[in-house]
Amino acid sequence: MSRETVSYTDGHIYEFSPDLDPVYTAADGESLTFETIDSLNKEIQEDDDLLESIPEEVNAATGPVAVEGAEPGDVLAVEIESVEVNEDRGRVVTAPGFGLLQEHDDIEHPFTRITPVDDDADTVEFDGIDVPIRPVIGTIGVATESETISTLSPHDHGGNLDTTDMTAGTTAYFPVFQEGGLLAMGDSKAAMADGEMCGTGAEIGTDVDVTVSVVKQPEPSIDRPLVRTPDAWKTVASADTMEEAVELANRDLIRLLAADHDMSPTEAYTFSSLVGGLEISQVVDPLVTVRNACPAEYLSVPF
Amino acid sequence: MSRETVSYTDGHIYEFSPDLDPVYTAADGESLTFETIDSLNKEIQEDDDLLESIPEEVNAATGPVAVEGAEPGDVLAVEIESVEVNEDRGRVVTAPGFGLLQEHDDIEHPFTRITPVDDDADTVEFDGIDVPIRPVIGTIGVATESETISTLSPHDHGGNLDTTDMTAGTTAYFPVFQEGGLLAMGDSKAAMADGEMCGTGAEIGTDVDVTVSVVKQPEPSIDRPLVRTPDAWKTVASADTMEEAVELANRDLIRLLAADHDMSPTEAYTFSSLVGGLEISQVVDPLVTVRNACPAEYLSVPF
Repeated sequence: MSRETVSYTDGHIYEFSPDLDPVYTAADGESLTFETIDSLNKEIQEDDDLLESIPEEVNAATGPVAVEGAEPGDVLAVEIESVEVNEDRGRVVTAPGFGLLQEHDDIEHPFTRITPVDDDADTVEFDGIDVPIRPVIGTIGVATESETISTLSPHDHGGNLDTTDMTAGTTAYFPVFQEGGLLAMGDSKAAMADGEMCGTGAEIGTDVDVTVSVVKQPEPSIDRPLVRTPDAWKTVASADTMEEAVELANRDLIRLLAADHDMSPTEAYTFSSLVGGLEISQVVDPLVTVRNACPAEYLSVPF
Repeated sequence: MSRETVSYTDGHIYEFSPDLDPVYTAADGESLTFETIDSLNKEIQEDDDLLESIPEEVNAATGPVAVEGAEPGDVLAVEIESVEVNEDRGRVVTAPGFGLLQEHDDIEHPFTRITPVDDDADTVEFDGIDVPIRPVIGTIGVATESETISTLSPHDHGGNLDTTDMTAGTTAYFPVFQEGGLLAMGDSKAAMADGEMCGTGAEIGTDVDVTVSVVKQPEPSIDRPLVRTPDAWKTVASADTMEEAVELANRDLIRLLAADHDMSPTEAYTFSSLVGGLEISQVVDPLVTVRNACPAEYLSVPF
C-alpha cells in the first residue's frame, strides 16, 4: 500500500463541528501525510501585502481524515513524525483588533514581515537575523462533541491550539467525540514563540507525516488534548482567561497523576507543584491555551 | 578579606519598603553568602503540622544588604553561584484561601507533606518518589520605590517572584530604587513547578552564594526584574492578572530587542512572536508572575 497524501486541495475545513465529511479514511495504525497551506491562504507574499482584518476563512485545516474503528470514548493518537516546510517563505503579521498589544498605539496594525526560507530550509530570515526552522502545527483537532467552532479558536477538540509542542517527536492525543475521530490540521509556522504574542508565528505551508491510531476506551480517559513530547506529558487546556485555563490544565494533570500513583487529589495537586509545571501556548486566539507539563519519568499514562 | 555570610539571624524582613536598614554593606563586586530560613519559619516539621492560615510573617527575606555605589537609576546585578539546601527536609503545603485550586472541594486545605532530603542532598522524597533537588530562591528583591510590599507579594522590585530561574547559573538584575539597592532573599524551595500551583514548592532553608555588582545608569534601563539564565534573557513581570502580566513582560522584551537591533517597536513585537516566548512563574501569590524569554543569541543587553 502506497503512503497516502491528503492535501488541502483534496479538502479542508474552516470549522470543526460534530458532522464532518471525511476526505479520506485511514486504517488504525496507518501512516500518511497531510499537506497544509499557510493560515492566510497564500494571500500574503510580500511586505506590502497587509492584513486589514482577520479573514472569515482562516487557518484552513487539511482533512478531515477518519480513522477506522475510532468511536466516542476512545482516544485518537497522532504520532507526528516530521513537519517540513513546503514553500520558500513564511510571513509574520499583525492585523487590527488582533494580538496581545492590539491596543498599543506604537505598534502598527496591520504590518507584514516576510521571512524567507534559506536554501537548506533550516532557517528563516527576519531582518537579517537567522531563525532556526522549528515547525509548529498551529491548528490540529478532531470533530467536536456538539458545537461548531471556527479554526481560529481552540477548545477541547483541539483546533487553534498554537502549541509549540505540536511538532516532530510529539504524539498528540485527542478525545474522540464522533465516529472516525475526523482529524484535520493546518496553520503551521516555520517558527513560533510560546505565546504567539503578535497573533502569528512565521506562517507557512507544511507537509506533515503522521501515524494515526486508536486507543480503545482508556481509563482514565481525557476530556481535552494531551501531548507526549520526548521529555514530558503535557495536558493542554483552552479557556476564556489564563486563570481558567491553568485551573483546567492542572486538574487534568492531577487526574492522571492520581490514577497512576494511587494518590488522593490533594497528594497529586501538591506533587504537581514540585516538578514540570505550567506553560503558555498562546494568548491571542479567541480563547487562550496553556499546558501543564509533567516530566515523563513521573507519569505512566496507559497510551 | 574573608567571605561574609549574612544569616536570617543577623536580620530579615517581611516587607520590602523604600527605607530599609542594611544589616551589611557589600563592596561593588563582592561575593557573599545569604543564609535563608524556610518560608514558614520552621513551624512545619511533620505531616501533622498544618497551616490553618497564611501567617502574618511569612517568607522571611535575609538582609537587606546594601551594595556600595548603587544609586537610583542603576541596576543591581546578582550573580547566583550556588544554592544549597541547609536542612534535612522540605515541606509542601496547602492552606485555606491559598493556591490555584483553593475553591475545589476535593482538595484538602490545610494539608502538609514533608519531603525528606536524601543523604546525598540531591533529591527530596514525595511519597516514595525521588524528586531531584533543583533549588529556587522564591523571594528576592530590593528596596521599593515608594510602596511597602509584603514578602508574600511580587512587584517591580522583585519580592515573591517564585521564579524557577532564580537558581545557580542565573544572574538576576533589579532596578535600583534606593541608595545601596538593599538586597534581601529567602523563601527557597528544594523543588518547584512553574506555576507553584498549590501555593508552595518544597519549602526549605538554603545557603545562597552570590556576587553583587552595580551597573551604572544603563541604557536602556529596566523597570522590573530581568534574568540572564545560561540560555536566555528573560523579562519578569508581576500583575493582578496573567493577561496584564504578559503584556508587561512582552513590552519589556520589545524595548530591549528594539534597542539592541535598532528595530521599531512593531518589528521587535513581531520578532518576539517567533522565538522563546512567554513562561509562567507563579499563579498563586497575590499578584501573578510571568516571564518573556528570548534566547541569548538574539539579544545583547549591555549588562
